[in-house]
Amino acid sequence: MFKDFKLIAGRPVYIQIKDYMKHLIIKGGLQGNQKLPSTRELSTLLKVSRNSVISAYAELEDDGFAYAVQGQGSYVAPTPPGSETISSWTMDWKTRINDHARLAEDLDIMKRGIRAEKGTISFTSIAPDESLFDLDNVKRSFMDRMSVEGNVLLNYGYAKGYKPLIDYLKQYMEHKGVEMKGKDILITNGFTEGFDIVLSALSKKNGSVICENPTHHTAIKNLKLNGFEITGIPMERDGIDLVELEKALQEQAFDCAYFVPSYHNPTGIVMSPEKRQRLMKLMNRYQIPVIEDGFNEELRYSGSHVAPLIAAAGSGNSVIYLGSFSKVLFPGLRVGWVLADQELIYSLESVKRARTIHTSTLDQSILYQYLLGGHLEKYLKKARAEYKRKYELTLQCCKEFIPYTALSGDGGLHLFVTFAEGFNTRTLLAACHEQGVIFTAGDIFFTDGKGQNTIRIGFSRVTDEDIRKGIEIIGRTARQLMG
Amino acid sequence: MFKDFKLIAGRPVYIQIKDYMKHLIIKGGLQGNQKLPSTRELSTLLKVSRNSVISAYAELEDDGFAYAVQGQGSYVAPTPPGSETISSWTMDWKTRINDHARLAEDLDIMKRGIRAEKGTISFTSIAPDESLFDLDNVKRSFMDRMSVEGNVLLNYGYAKGYKPLIDYLKQYMEHKGVEMKGKDILITNGFTEGFDIVLSALSKKNGSVICENPTHHTAIKNLKLNGFEITGIPMERDGIDLVELEKALQEQAFDCAYFVPSYHNPTGIVMSPEKRQRLMKLMNRYQIPVIEDGFNEELRYSGSHVAPLIAAAGSGNSVIYLGSFSKVLFPGLRVGWVLADQELIYSLESVKRARTIHTSTLDQSILYQYLLGGHLEKYLKKARAEYKRKYELTLQCCKEFIPYTALSGDGGLHLFVTFAEGFNTRTLLAACHEQGVIFTAGDIFFTDGKGQNTIRIGFSRVTDEDIRKGIEIIGRTARQLMG
Repeated sequence: MFKDFKLIAGRPVYIQIKDYMKHLIIKGGLQGNQKLPSTRELSTLLKVSRNSVISAYAELEDDGFAYAVQGQGSYVAPTPPGSETISSWTMDWKTRINDHARLAEDLDIMKRGIRAEKGTISFTSIAPDESLFDLDNVKRSFMDRMSVEGNVLLNYGYAKGYKPLIDYLKQYMEHKGVEMKGKDILITNGFTEGFDIVLSALSKKNGSVICENPTHHTAIKNLKLNGFEITGIPMERDGIDLVELEKALQEQAFDCAYFVPSYHNPTGIVMSPEKRQRLMKLMNRYQIPVIEDGFNEELRYSGSHVAPLIAAAGSGNSVIYLGSFSKVLFPGLRVGWVLADQELIYSLESVKRARTIHTSTLDQSILYQYLLGGHLEKYLKKARAEYKRKYELTLQCCKEFIPYTALSGDGGLHLFVTFAEGFNTRTLLAACHEQGVIFTAGDIFFTDGKGQNTIRIGFSRVTDEDIRKGIEIIGRTARQLMG
Repeated sequence: MFKDFKLIAGRPVYIQIKDYMKHLIIKGGLQGNQKLPSTRELSTLLKVSRNSVISAYAELEDDGFAYAVQGQGSYVAPTPPGSETISSWTMDWKTRINDHARLAEDLDIMKRGIRAEKGTISFTSIAPDESLFDLDNVKRSFMDRMSVEGNVLLNYGYAKGYKPLIDYLKQYMEHKGVEMKGKDILITNGFTEGFDIVLSALSKKNGSVICENPTHHTAIKNLKLNGFEITGIPMERDGIDLVELEKALQEQAFDCAYFVPSYHNPTGIVMSPEKRQRLMKLMNRYQIPVIEDGFNEELRYSGSHVAPLIAAAGSGNSVIYLGSFSKVLFPGLRVGWVLADQELIYSLESVKRARTIHTSTLDQSILYQYLLGGHLEKYLKKARAEYKRKYELTLQCCKEFIPYTALSGDGGLHLFVTFAEGFNTRTLLAACHEQGVIFTAGDIFFTDGKGQNTIRIGFSRVTDEDIRKGIEIIGRTARQLMG
């Protein structure tokens, strides 16, 4: 015994001795009331200082794993924690979970997707390129905030969010042309929680939502999990098809609409300013509230800013805007925001509190300090230049190698490729996977089970060399399958 | 114009100029196509360097707020963002939100509670005392983790949680006597999200849950929001009344039970080891899965560790343990964990992903590094000593001043006081509030609308002097009301 003790760095020695002895006791290597080695013996056996052993024994006693006898030394407790277990009952949880949990699992693509083995060229991710992160500014932002109000940051915060960040985002959105009067902001754990909270709070008079088809698959998942029927409207080159949209609005009533007007996921299309105006007029005429996904609005590479739908709505309160910097800055910081009518936000605040009390105050304060310091502007310059280069390279490679019938993507971190009707991209994916290249089969983005002939190519985390190499393989394999 | 420009510290000057000009344009102070002051003029007017103005104008153009004319200078864009707003529609959101959102608001005590004005002695909080936080170790933990894997921490993490933290917590729970074989851990945004995820995934064959009465009011709220009927069982001095519990189990079927065995909220009672054994035997006999709230297990001031229910269950898988360090360490770090059967955790992981993708990786990695460094042990020694002193002072003051019929609290951060039947603590609260003292009226903790004669006194954030002063006022006022 005591031979397999190994010290690890960065953890106090006495705690490692305590952990080790507890493990022996729990696993039965040391029995109840058995005498423990003297502190001198153990320090020799484990090659540690005697003081460390003395501290470890004191902690073992304090935790009820051992007891000391005056003048005789320490003994294992007669009944150390865990030794009093009773005849235990094993149940089948499958029969105890509900359809909601089962549906969440069925719709969880992370459990279905192909794992990328080492060396695979993966176009599946649209997460930012980690190598662009300016860690020093993040560290400095953290240290600055901590020195200003560390105690406050580490205690409970507010469900609505961290006030300085909320105020900053209000001005940020105002500068996108949003009329902030009568509106307010709720901080959430990224877009996903914001969207889920909004859906859980909306009444289901009709139980149906209208949106672009294809669209963000997480949105499809959360709409289904919240019990909504989904009607998808096809896309045109400059955004959703308004003629098809109005037809659908005439045929059926909807509780709300969900749109991704900028760098739409998965098509990468940016809705034209004119279409945004006409879309909002249409929504107003049919009195349909709009959930706008701000997603990666910031990732434009050229041309000037296009105002979000909520700006086009002016002083109206019918748009719920969901914002996030996850695709632009750091997804690890789980911070997003819901911008909407202030009375609605006041209600949503209670739903948020019941779910997670509040979003990490550290994440919020680091983001605030980072934004205040003007680092977003600097970072965007760098990130845009880098992603623009990759975007143009990917676009060029697709044109050169892939036998597509349609190709879209005005910027952002991905392109969307459509092949001829009847071509199956699941087959293409399987064939490419064998050659070490994977991408996202487009069918998961469709609301009507279609899209078997489409793929999404995310390039943000792929090197220039691999972009060229990977897309060449996709193109060649596609031609082979087409015969 | 330009008179009200004020520079703030910590934000680049050119961005402040840009923000200021955008504001003027949006508010109509500067009209479309109006010529902007020359960079030299503006630098004089705002008392800033000309280079800052040049950078600001460049950004304004980039954002579509202005345009430059060769040799003539810069002009406000003809239609700056937000100026194209359309006739906008205002809707009544009250008619669009559902009963779930309304119930969340009704049960949101943060919107009902009395606000503590400056100088008020408040016994309402059971959050930790911020002055005890060891900020330096938190800062160091952050810097250490960031230097090891900053890029990884800031990009997307895993729904299940941050692996090093999960592994650490597995050993941590094993040392509490838990048989970890066949079990797994899911990291959540504190206890609240963990509890809500579990409830949302459990089937409602009977639509009913059994628990202690009184109990944690957030638990009551989330049980109701998840559509469960609640049956509360009275407390005895050493925990839930097993005779009453078995009666209820014979009368009715329940989908699960919810218990707070250690430092029960609000009574502060610790369930005896014997009772834990008998309770688990009872649950097994009636085949009721148990949700155990580990809440503030760590806050014992004397005696040795009492093993959690999930330890008593041995190799059984019928207990879902919800852990959190929020009451012990830092509530601002929104990190809790669900420890349960590994197949159940695998299902819950998908529910978690659909709600918030994952918990803040920074929070998780800071907590991990802090725990690894052995700081929890050191911090607990300090915190326990401090809280123990306050606990004993509060206990003594209650005995000295308050005309109670029952007083409970074996440790933790609060005591629970019961007055004679018919005595109304809402009246007492109102009368004390006028004298600058507030506490929590106990009725919110009761599952059956009772408890009007009880109060919870949280002492963790009150000074010794105020504890004495405040409780004396509560006692005197109670006697006056009793006449």
